[in-house]
Amino acid sequence: MTAREEGRTPGASSSHISVVKLSHSWFILCTSRELGSKPLARTLQGTPLVLFRGEGGKPGALVDRCPHRNVPLSLGRVQGGLLECGYHGWRFDQGGQCRLIPGLVGESEAKSRCATSYPAREQDGFVWVYSTPGVEPTTEPFRFPLLDAPDYATVRQVLRAPGSLHAVLENTLDVPHTAFLHGGLFRTAEKRNEIDVVVRRGADRVEAEYVGEPAPKGLVGRLLAPGGGVVQHFDRFLMPSIAQVEYRIGEKSHILVNSAMTPVGDFETLVYAVVTVKLPVPRFMLKAAMPFVLPVALHIFGQDARILAKQTDSIRRFGTESYASTEIDVLGPSILRLMRAQERERTAPPPDTVHETRVRMRT
Amino acid sequence: MTAREEGRTPGASSSHISVVKLSHSWFILCTSRELGSKPLARTLQGTPLVLFRGEGGKPGALVDRCPHRNVPLSLGRVQGGLLECGYHGWRFDQGGQCRLIPGLVGESEAKSRCATSYPAREQDGFVWVYSTPGVEPTTEPFRFPLLDAPDYATVRQVLRAPGSLHAVLENTLDVPHTAFLHGGLFRTAEKRNEIDVVVRRGADRVEAEYVGEPAPKGLVGRLLAPGGGVVQHFDRFLMPSIAQVEYRIGEKSHILVNSAMTPVGDFETLVYAVVTVKLPVPRFMLKAAMPFVLPVALHIFGQDARILAKQTDSIRRFGTESYASTEIDVLGPSILRLMRAQERERTAPPPDTVHETRVRMRT
Amino acid sequence: MTAREEGRTPGASSSHISVVKLSHSWFILCTSRELGSKPLARTLQGTPLVLFRGEGGKPGALVDRCPHRNVPLSLGRVQGGLLECGYHGWRFDQGGQCRLIPGLVGESEAKSRCATSYPAREQDGFVWVYSTPGVEPTTEPFRFPLLDAPDYATVRQVLRAPGSLHAVLENTLDVPHTAFLHGGLFRTAEKRNEIDVVVRRGADRVEAEYVGEPAPKGLVGRLLAPGGGVVQHFDRFLMPSIAQVEYRIGEKSHILVNSAMTPVGDFETLVYAVVTVKLPVPRFMLKAAMPFVLPVALHIFGQDARILAKQTDSIRRFGTESYASTEIDVLGPSILRLMRAQERERTAPPPDTVHETRVRMRT
Repeated sequence: MTAREEGRTPGASSSHISVVKLSHSWFILCTSRELGSKPLARTLQGTPLVLFRGEGGKPGALVDRCPHRNVPLSLGRVQGGLLECGYHGWRFDQGGQCRLIPGLVGESEAKSRCATSYPAREQDGFVWVYSTPGVEPTTEPFRFPLLDAPDYATVRQVLRAPGSLHAVLENTLDVPHTAFLHGGLFRTAEKRNEIDVVVRRGADRVEAEYVGEPAPKGLVGRLLAPGGGVVQHFDRFLMPSIAQVEYRIGEKSHILVNSAMTPVGDFETLVYAVVTVKLPVPRFMLKAAMPFVLPVALHIFGQDARILAKQTDSIRRFGTESYASTEIDVLGPSILRLMRAQERERTAPPPDTVHETRVRMRT
Repeated sequence: MTAREEGRTPGASSSHISVVKLSHSWFILCTSRELGSKPLARTLQGTPLVLFRGEGGKPGALVDRCPHRNVPLSLGRVQGGLLECGYHGWRFDQGGQCRLIPGLVGESEAKSRCATSYPAREQDGFVWVYSTPGVEPTTEPFRFPLLDAPDYATVRQVLRAPGSLHAVLENTLDVPHTAFLHGGLFRTAEKRNEIDVVVRRGADRVEAEYVGEPAPKGLVGRLLAPGGGVVQHFDRFLMPSIAQVEYRIGEKSHILVNSAMTPVGDFETLVYAVVTVKLPVPRFMLKAAMPFVLPVALHIFGQDARILAKQTDSIRRFGTESYASTEIDVLGPSILRLMRAQERERTAPPPDTVHETRVRMRT
Repeated sequence: MTAREEGRTPGASSSHISVVKLSHSWFILCTSRELGSKPLARTLQGTPLVLFRGEGGKPGALVDRCPHRNVPLSLGRVQGGLLECGYHGWRFDQGGQCRLIPGLVGESEAKSRCATSYPAREQDGFVWVYSTPGVEPTTEPFRFPLLDAPDYATVRQVLRAPGSLHAVLENTLDVPHTAFLHGGLFRTAEKRNEIDVVVRRGADRVEAEYVGEPAPKGLVGRLLAPGGGVVQHFDRFLMPSIAQVEYRIGEKSHILVNSAMTPVGDFETLVYAVVTVKLPVPRFMLKAAMPFVLPVALHIFGQDARILAKQTDSIRRFGTESYASTEIDVLGPSILRLMRAQERERTAPPPDTVHETRVRMRT
């Protein structure tokens, strides 16, 4: 991608230490259902893109401006598997090749008339785009686990978070703020236990395991773990942008929240959340519980979104960022280190050796 | 003009290859009727100006800030042929000379107290301003042809186009987009004929002649060319900012659309359109037809303005411009070359040698 | 203060010759009454600050972002004399020291976790903040004179002026514009007398004395100076930001208007006006007159605010400033010189030698 193909996001600068641009990475740009017969305007890391269904209904992703006269291609329409610009009617295929120029007597195809094209894939009900144009991807998009596993149910939700990719990832995987910001809903600030956190840092991931977390009490506890049992809790970041929260309670309860984050701009992130659960309750009870669980989840997300917006406002206003981490910020700094490393090297990660450390935290 | 006298237009930068600043050029700043007894704020190429009628009713044009304390002079009033600032009451003549300072015991006139002044002329019902201040103009404003010719009727219209001077000029003189963007109104995309276009490039102009264009059919054809006849169609750009579209149909029909463009800012252009026609129909029929013709013309302009706005948004968003021209973009690249040449050299054009080329186009 | 602690004010640049940043200076940030049990967000010279009442109710002032994750501290709450961040619950004292980190097993206090702290004082019913953080102030806040003097009455008013500190100070102390902008209310433009103005320039102040100003006529004159008498009129600027207008009429009338200006941003100023008067009329008559005097004062301020807003718009639009002063601009240029000198040297002013000049002005 040349510099002139990248859109500019006002506000970010070299002094924004938590803002990264990740190349050679797959991100979700929309759900399969959102991409119909009309072109769809989307933004990835500040670059305006247009998605459309080309030949055979396969998704295509081009930079959203016609190479002829700069008009957004998303204003046009799809004609016979080609994306047509609304100004002079130039038509492009999924590879960006110009295939028709109305009025031109000679040949339409020419390298200088190509639109910049990004690899695109449809998988798990989402349209994924590779963040480096004009290359053959060396990786595959993330596969959401257990989507079709028996005894598991899945719920999807798309959320818009007003923060940088890093800020939203850290917030999603951060335990200390839950007792405080969401106090009362989760852990309470008063009664605190000390527990151990095992942190494992790999070449493309970092994981925190919370050891000795007490099982939920009361009705919820009896529902999730009727025979009692040990709680296993993992928070994981998987490059480039997956936040994974996993709970196992006893043998029969398994909750897996995968959030695939899409950096729209420097300070705007889309969260494609896929919640997959196995619980020792009949499926009809799960369905009956959803009307109660979803509003609580959205309330919590709303509190986080409000703080993220204020954090972003503050970073924009100062023009710089300030970070003073302690040992209980177990994942945030590691996430940033992984992203920065990829931004610098743009090569495959080294063989996976895992470094394990242990932290005590009051929860 | 010193740099500090130029207003800044946010958005444009050196990477905007189609944005030019033309010095030593006449532009229309308002109609004669708009400039009454009150000062009038206008902007030319990003510079805020104030127009007023000074001694003898002659128009004056000053940079729109008082040299004393930066307050816009357009907030003040005209007193005895002098423009008076609304803060401390300093008064200026059309040449920018300070002629009165209330409260001051000594002499009011001083070089340091002058407002920057631009040459101004009233001609053809418009107030024209020369884009270089403090000099004697070496050229005269454009004269609209045939304004007082017998058998000709004239209609004027002022339009605001949300694009750069170059983008609006090219759009006005561009044939290929008409079949597509205005499809149905003009040429149709289906039935296309190949015709020849002769392009003539001179030192201060470029012209495209469409050879062998078919005569209009049906009622319109019979009205415009009752005895049949050849269609002559010219599109011309005249430096610095005139777009001229000329049709002759047979001996008796002559349509001349002159659009004098004023670059308000880098991406905002005012179009002073003067349409002059001779038609083989009685004048009362022309008048009767106007209520039908004007809405169609404004509808077409609306389609163009919408595309220009999107094009401008896109250029601003990317911070750069992309152009891939083909041989049927017969005028746009030449217009830019002429404007850029004047921007660089700021001297008179070389003697007029005309280069002629020939292009085939499907219309 | 490090550069990263300073908020950015869009619009100002090095080409803005009248914009200054004053260090080591006391400014009013709010009234005592405005600072209750909740933290209060304020801005000083572009830097976002949070004010709160810490231990013993004493005011504290910190940079308004948590050193942990950039969230504005003003979103939090005061708990036991400490300011608590709303994201993770970190708590800070007035000195900026971090005193509690929820969840952390080890020690909370650490230099890297400190919030930047500014000296704060409560005096005369206002909360003052020193514009250099982390130092011991070498001066005291300005003391409003005669606040508790017998026979004097005091009125306070807070006003927001859309101009730079310098522009608002000059406007407040400028005589020539009153006859013009406020014409009719003050001096009239028609009948003008020539009077002498004695200007005294010191190391930290500049004063203009108007000699031979005629006493007010009619009812107002008989009220203010029943036995006749000389008018004494002084306009003073006291570093860093006090505008003082003083009238003595005869022996018995004394009017003192102190305006303590706070530079919120480069082009936004808060005016804390304290009007102290002694008049030869009973106190109940003073109170009865207030409903008539206040609207007139606010009307005059409104005229000034409108001009200041236009002046600021113009400066922003041009990106530069233009000043052409004459001898009757007796204070403005001196005020700028004093502020610039402090900005450059940041040391104590030299011993106070006063230079006196004399100007003739028509009023």
